[in-house]
Amino acid sequence: MSEIKATNITWHEGEVSRDERFKHLNQKGCVMWFTGLSGSGKSTLACAVESALVNLGKHCYRLDGDNIRHGLNKNLGFSAADREENIRRIGEVAKLFADAGIITLTSFISPYTKDRDLARQLCEKDGLKFIEIYMNTPLDVAEARDPKGLYKKARAGEIKGFTGIDDPYEAPEKAEIVCMTAEMSLDDEVKLCINYLDENGLLSA
Amino acid sequence: MSEIKATNITWHEGEVSRDERFKHLNQKGCVMWFTGLSGSGKSTLACAVESALVNLGKHCYRLDGDNIRHGLNKNLGFSAADREENIRRIGEVAKLFADAGIITLTSFISPYTKDRDLARQLCEKDGLKFIEIYMNTPLDVAEARDPKGLYKKARAGEIKGFTGIDDPYEAPEKAEIVCMTAEMSLDDEVKLCINYLDENGLLSA
Repeated sequence: MSEIKATNITWHEGEVSRDERFKHLNQKGCVMWFTGLSGSGKSTLACAVESALVNLGKHCYRLDGDNIRHGLNKNLGFSAADREENIRRIGEVAKLFADAGIITLTSFISPYTKDRDLARQLCEKDGLKFIEIYMNTPLDVAEARDPKGLYKKARAGEIKGFTGIDDPYEAPEKAEIVCMTAEMSLDDEVKLCINYLDENGLLSA
Repeated sequence: MSEIKATNITWHEGEVSRDERFKHLNQKGCVMWFTGLSGSGKSTLACAVESALVNLGKHCYRLDGDNIRHGLNKNLGFSAADREENIRRIGEVAKLFADAGIITLTSFISPYTKDRDLARQLCEKDGLKFIEIYMNTPLDVAEARDPKGLYKKARAGEIKGFTGIDDPYEAPEKAEIVCMTAEMSLDDEVKLCINYLDENGLLSA
């Protein structure tokens, strides 16, 4: 098991820099922030983009409800203050991952412009690229898909404050990438995202 | 800038697995949790270990007061509940980094056994290696160093609840690595940490 000889262990004082991390991975850490209604295809696209990036030899990580809601944010509910804190923490963690050199994909409804803008500012003021990807899906299309049966419950009044039904979704006005999901194939959406990263120099360092 | 041809973009459905991430980086994500008094040398050693790992071609990230207290945990104070939540969030984030494949170094006093054990359990129950590194420094040695002048302030009563002065430090009883910092050189401490990772198969995947 042991392959490291003590003579190979060298180190220097001071901190390893972000640039060193980026060079080591030959990519620039950044945040790809997927936003849209429940059922708009955020997680499906984020997974597919992650897969495409791994096939290109890039290193990514996805933050989503599965690994956040039951962990870091398990002590948060669905009040206005808790929803804001939910997105704030995700923004802060996404920034740390980007600083670490990782192409970080977040997949949350994140319905409020103010909260998404806060996440953007956290990254941008620290010199990290933030890419907002708006899954533009008409409500009737998302509701017809209803993959988790949530719209049905919201219409029946079993879920209160559900985005698109009795709570607003504030559509991004300046998203870097807009996916017209009712008209585009998943393959075209993936290519749109990868090409954006490539054209912005994020796939090398 | 654009080097990616659309024909090179391939992807598969489903999630990229932890194993794929580990293989891609040729290492196993894990958490190296440095604990000890203020002035015990946690951050100095964590920086040196990070540097040594980068020289070995490994990918790391350090979580410390600088990038956590002013970001993710900026809405926490120093009450008992807030200190516990501080360490809980750090544990959750460190787990996410380890899951992403990163050798994650955390450098916080983390004085209470209960909180450190919670961080350990978060990792271990998810199949991730948690390595507690106890910087065993006598209080008088740490206080004589006093690199930030904090002991002086605590003795003067200007800081309340300071670990080692008027708040306890609960020493780990089963730390994976113990650094007797008053007797060991920094170089020996670095080698102890790197050899531990190597012998436990964490530097390959």
